[in-house]
Amino acid sequence: MTLTPAERFARLRLARTDRVGPVTFRQLLDRYATAERALDALPDLIGRGGAGHSIPAAASVEDELAAGDRIGARLIVLGETDYPDMLAAVDPPPPLLWTLGDAGLMARPCIAVVGARIASAGGQRIARGLAQQLGEAGHVVVSGLARGIDGAAHGGALPTGTVAVLGGGVDDVYPPDNADLYREIAEQGCIVSESPVGARAQAKDFPRRNRIISGLSRGVIVVEAELRSGSLITARLAAEQGRDVFAVPGSPLDPRSKGPNELLRQGAILCEGLEDIEREFGRIRAVREPAAGNPFDGAPDDIDSALVERVAALLSPTPTPRDELARAIGAPIGAVAAALLELSLTGRATLLPGGLASL
Amino acid sequence: MTLTPAERFARLRLARTDRVGPVTFRQLLDRYATAERALDALPDLIGRGGAGHSIPAAASVEDELAAGDRIGARLIVLGETDYPDMLAAVDPPPPLLWTLGDAGLMARPCIAVVGARIASAGGQRIARGLAQQLGEAGHVVVSGLARGIDGAAHGGALPTGTVAVLGGGVDDVYPPDNADLYREIAEQGCIVSESPVGARAQAKDFPRRNRIISGLSRGVIVVEAELRSGSLITARLAAEQGRDVFAVPGSPLDPRSKGPNELLRQGAILCEGLEDIEREFGRIRAVREPAAGNPFDGAPDDIDSALVERVAALLSPTPTPRDELARAIGAPIGAVAAALLELSLTGRATLLPGGLASL
Repeated sequence: MTLTPAERFARLRLARTDRVGPVTFRQLLDRYATAERALDALPDLIGRGGAGHSIPAAASVEDELAAGDRIGARLIVLGETDYPDMLAAVDPPPPLLWTLGDAGLMARPCIAVVGARIASAGGQRIARGLAQQLGEAGHVVVSGLARGIDGAAHGGALPTGTVAVLGGGVDDVYPPDNADLYREIAEQGCIVSESPVGARAQAKDFPRRNRIISGLSRGVIVVEAELRSGSLITARLAAEQGRDVFAVPGSPLDPRSKGPNELLRQGAILCEGLEDIEREFGRIRAVREPAAGNPFDGAPDDIDSALVERVAALLSPTPTPRDELARAIGAPIGAVAAALLELSLTGRATLLPGGLASL
Repeated sequence: MTLTPAERFARLRLARTDRVGPVTFRQLLDRYATAERALDALPDLIGRGGAGHSIPAAASVEDELAAGDRIGARLIVLGETDYPDMLAAVDPPPPLLWTLGDAGLMARPCIAVVGARIASAGGQRIARGLAQQLGEAGHVVVSGLARGIDGAAHGGALPTGTVAVLGGGVDDVYPPDNADLYREIAEQGCIVSESPVGARAQAKDFPRRNRIISGLSRGVIVVEAELRSGSLITARLAAEQGRDVFAVPGSPLDPRSKGPNELLRQGAILCEGLEDIEREFGRIRAVREPAAGNPFDGAPDDIDSALVERVAALLSPTPTPRDELARAIGAPIGAVAAALLELSLTGRATLLPGGLASL
């Protein structure tokens, strides 16, 4: 699909609107078909709930685009042809990606290699070797440009293709030790981020970054990781996204083995080398369920505010499926979806993946 | 059950008869109820097939008993109260055990810790630590007195109880480096073997030794092992015997991790420490199927030699179930079992565990 420049601009603007996370973004597109129309409807939707205006000024969106232009970065928004298919299949997909370098790499079969920042020499050797083997077998290696395992994985796959997903903007070179590696990836591979160019990474950015790492990939390989670590979160996200989780086993004497060993206990695929990955990918996969259809099909153009209040009254901190709410109040699911969307924009509901909503 | 001295003697003599392996031993007992009667019937059974006499002379059995007496070893034959229950549940159980030391240890919950002879320092530390933890938790640690992992496991469990199963006789101190350990186990633990006192271990003895190691144990833990190793055979035997197989993961950079990592791939339980074992043992186990009944029930006292030949004609190198043979020739299963027993004694059939027979 080719988007008009205006729609592309509108999608970036919508994605940067307060309270529009990936779930709401996708639902607004489902409901209004274009971001331009969603933005038109937004003041009314937000206004009804009494919250202040939160759509960013056009100038600030222009600034973000100009900042990208200055460093030669390229924006890919959800719905464009170049948006990676694997990532589009994630529920919900990130609304946009900033990229620096060869964005075409994301269209090739990707696999993530992640692990501990403070990795052992052996762990780094394994990550580098695996990345090299994977690259030679035609896989693009995705990681997070962190110290340790991430850096070793990128390094091993540099000649064959590697994608580094950052928490900050695509120009946020961090950690400083990886500055050379960053430069090489920008030249030979691809740097990717959901954050605006110029943004410095903050702790809150890493879960979104990790979702992109696993979302781009058919599988995630965890090399060394402590029990409570970002790598295990990436592995969990991969499992939720229906991607394969591989773990490289390690001696119980090394605390960095705890993470992968625990993943193995939970059913991850044991990975000692390329054969373990190819064997798994070679299996015939059960056909995945097709994505749920547009929930707004048949929704009326205007939602009765009484219905919105009835839906609001049913919400609790426990996530509830949309169709359960529809049954409870005897309203069409499209109308309930529209009511939930409105509630989420006014901060009265949180939309969750899988058609769930909570207070 | 208390056996008469004559029956005990007969059981040892029967076990030492040519072509009487554990399967035939059990079937002869099933068919004739006592070893004395089985020995009486044997010349006739063997004679019919034309093979020479192969029951050992009474004097040689007396010599074996006297050799045991001289070193203070104790013989436990299948059917005696002190024969360990776990081992009796194995199909087929070893006909006898020679023991030196505290044979009562085998009646306590046993778990085997086995692994590489040329083990890493880390692997030995893990084996010793696991054995210590297991011992403190009330388990008796069973192993094979080999160098490396076996020795470390025995060492860790020496204060709490350990059983060493040997390929040679219980007086066959091997390897020489473990002479001190052997002495300590004989004093504080238990040395066990199916071989006669005085016998030196030969390569052919190790599969039988490994079967006893796993057969005595609720589970087998493999610490470090190469892919083609005795430890993996012990693990396979344990699985066949319905016992749990645990594997301690290790780095792919160490070839000694290949064995346990491969076991994990095949479904072994990942073991980093005592909790992994206790968790598994804590699960409520499905009630195991009761052992098959006596196949000779209803067998005629004398077997028609025509039937024997018809059974023989149906055998092939591929193991065939007894009941399939019975169906094929339309004879009662008891008669077919008797015919197979006769064929096995004359070297024309091999009886296999699970009621199978082959050429």
